[in-house]
Amino acid sequence: MKNFNKPVYLAAGAYTISLGTGRNEFHPKKPRPGLDYYIQEAGKAVLSQINSPENIDEGVIANFMAARFNRQGNLASLMTTIHPSLVHKPMIRVEGACASGGLGIATGVKNILSGLADVVLVVGVEVQNTVKAIYGADILAGAGYYAGERKEGHTYFFPAKFSDRAGAYFEKYGKDITRQAMAHWYANAVENARLNPLAQEYHNTCKDLVSQGMTQPDAKTFTEHLNIFDCSKVSDGAAAILVCSEEGYKKLGLNSDAVCEIIGLGQVMANLISSPADLTELDASRKAANDARDMANVGIGDIGVFEVHDCFTISGLLSIEALGIVGQGKAPELVINGETKLTGKYPVNTGGGLVGYGHPTGASGVRMAVDLWKQMTGKAEKFQVDLKKEHGMLISMGGNDKSLVSVIVKK
Amino acid sequence: MKNFNKPVYLAAGAYTISLGTGRNEFHPKKPRPGLDYYIQEAGKAVLSQINSPENIDEGVIANFMAARFNRQGNLASLMTTIHPSLVHKPMIRVEGACASGGLGIATGVKNILSGLADVVLVVGVEVQNTVKAIYGADILAGAGYYAGERKEGHTYFFPAKFSDRAGAYFEKYGKDITRQAMAHWYANAVENARLNPLAQEYHNTCKDLVSQGMTQPDAKTFTEHLNIFDCSKVSDGAAAILVCSEEGYKKLGLNSDAVCEIIGLGQVMANLISSPADLTELDASRKAANDARDMANVGIGDIGVFEVHDCFTISGLLSIEALGIVGQGKAPELVINGETKLTGKYPVNTGGGLVGYGHPTGASGVRMAVDLWKQMTGKAEKFQVDLKKEHGMLISMGGNDKSLVSVIVKK
Repeated sequence: MKNFNKPVYLAAGAYTISLGTGRNEFHPKKPRPGLDYYIQEAGKAVLSQINSPENIDEGVIANFMAARFNRQGNLASLMTTIHPSLVHKPMIRVEGACASGGLGIATGVKNILSGLADVVLVVGVEVQNTVKAIYGADILAGAGYYAGERKEGHTYFFPAKFSDRAGAYFEKYGKDITRQAMAHWYANAVENARLNPLAQEYHNTCKDLVSQGMTQPDAKTFTEHLNIFDCSKVSDGAAAILVCSEEGYKKLGLNSDAVCEIIGLGQVMANLISSPADLTELDASRKAANDARDMANVGIGDIGVFEVHDCFTISGLLSIEALGIVGQGKAPELVINGETKLTGKYPVNTGGGLVGYGHPTGASGVRMAVDLWKQMTGKAEKFQVDLKKEHGMLISMGGNDKSLVSVIVKK
Repeated sequence: MKNFNKPVYLAAGAYTISLGTGRNEFHPKKPRPGLDYYIQEAGKAVLSQINSPENIDEGVIANFMAARFNRQGNLASLMTTIHPSLVHKPMIRVEGACASGGLGIATGVKNILSGLADVVLVVGVEVQNTVKAIYGADILAGAGYYAGERKEGHTYFFPAKFSDRAGAYFEKYGKDITRQAMAHWYANAVENARLNPLAQEYHNTCKDLVSQGMTQPDAKTFTEHLNIFDCSKVSDGAAAILVCSEEGYKKLGLNSDAVCEIIGLGQVMANLISSPADLTELDASRKAANDARDMANVGIGDIGVFEVHDCFTISGLLSIEALGIVGQGKAPELVINGETKLTGKYPVNTGGGLVGYGHPTGASGVRMAVDLWKQMTGKAEKFQVDLKKEHGMLISMGGNDKSLVSVIVKK
């Protein structure tokens, strides 16, 4: 990818509670808010940070499976309900499975670079608790090749895919240390979530998270190598942020302290039908991360905070290797040693990530951008990292290492 | 919207057969090709017109409801199966109900203007014959506000919405002339389709199409004011085209005769939840068309060929008024007088449109762009218009006048 023709910035991020099991507000049998509620809540939280919604030029809404969870399409048109001034403006819905949110940010960037817009509102949303988990798993299997591998596969399609990756990793790099690292990943995620009042695991009171994360998987009811604590959450929620030109954020009444610059973008699609060459590696993730770092012209040592797509704890481990934080097979040691904690050398998923905050699928990539923006602008409150480096990086993944967006931001 | 920062072109368009009832190849009980087949067939037909697929920088895939018709998401990743050189390139899926294809073209334009790409492959696809029509109608109702109006509405949601528009138009401008015009619209569509070997109505042999189009609707099985001939088709198909910079199309080995320039773009989203102020008008369509004409700086008299979204014959009539071809209430006379035929003053839907070619929903906006490109470059074969003006115009509509994209091209 070529370089940007002008500077692009993130501003005025916000997200809703991630609602689902774990939150005190969640009751499986009581009525819950729908898509409109989440879209409007996240969107209005962005609008409350700027001088006038009139200054928003375009909108992008990222969503994965509202068509099945909520029977709703045409979400760009639903996005206009955030504020009357958005009506009749150009908007679009984008999708790339669980990378939908990352693609939303990428679309916002391109719309700014096109010169047609100075301020783009990007919203990500998913409302998944409309169906039981086993049906939800079938819906989410639409991120894989449904007409092929899904039909031959496990009922819990993606857990089974990443269970296979965990099994391969166990075999290659040792089961004990990897299993320990997965439990530590879970524990870190919940510890961070306890500092984030919007996180699904905010109310978690378990005293020995690492031991809980070591629970044996029950292959009869779930998958061979993953237990339930290895999984991200089934969540309802939305995230929203503005992508702006310099002229754009100034027009909104914001100053440079309130924004961070996007200096690197990687966007990579792998072949949905082909199988991974090596289950212990995320090739497409690596390519997207390299592309983003090449554009930004920064090394991993220049980056002080990370957001990775931990749809499962094993995905988290594989992602930090794909990003180049450590070499192949080295992630478990890094995590066990606490280097991915808020106080570590490479703080990862500071607001809880997909395991701790939750995983409203289409929103997750946007939520990642919001958490990076919070860290860069000092707005992360209790999970604020004492940033020693001026860059942050995210990777948003859809499917089994199929659709990837990586973004690098600068303070 | 601001002006383009550089010229943008359409090149190398193609589409597949629109498969469904009416085509000799269609048998409701026999197996049919899936999404991959259509995506690949349309994509490869584009690739066959250029020197090397390596020169494609990015991809956009437009689709409305593969999530429900085919249980498939993550289509950008599936798009890489068109050719190995597309693997690991930036791709995205976009959606805006039946305007998905128009949004695909708009996204291609913006990606070119961003400076990150010189050649963008835009594919639109839908495979709808996987379910019975009555279930399909429920799926397509996701273009409306499903949690609200759908629940209170007719089983055939969109036919009923446009039936209401027809009824209001009957009342305001006269039932007899409007009903006549709707029958003529159907007849023109089939006449054009008979000149297009890929059209769903290509094999139609009815000798008196206007009389057939006058068939009384049966409100017991369908809707009050629309009969089955007023409806676009349930279709499987795909369309693909390249959006390029000047550098881009030259890199592909194409010369200026093989391309047409995009000089106007209108993109407008109305509020999904609000009801139309006046059922006899398409306000958002009018806004999008005006925006596109303002950017292009052309009047309606400068435009020699049109593509409008005739999801129903009444939508066709309303669309040509929204585009400003004639004033309110004047479309019936224009159509009855034959002015929208290939030989008329305002040729509309020259390849058959949604009623004649078919309506693979996510593909339709891209198919429209392909038909305009064919007309502009003299490749429309038997449905080629003797173009007396150098511009063409399309309007791609999603939902009940909710998501709109209008594009103006120049020879």
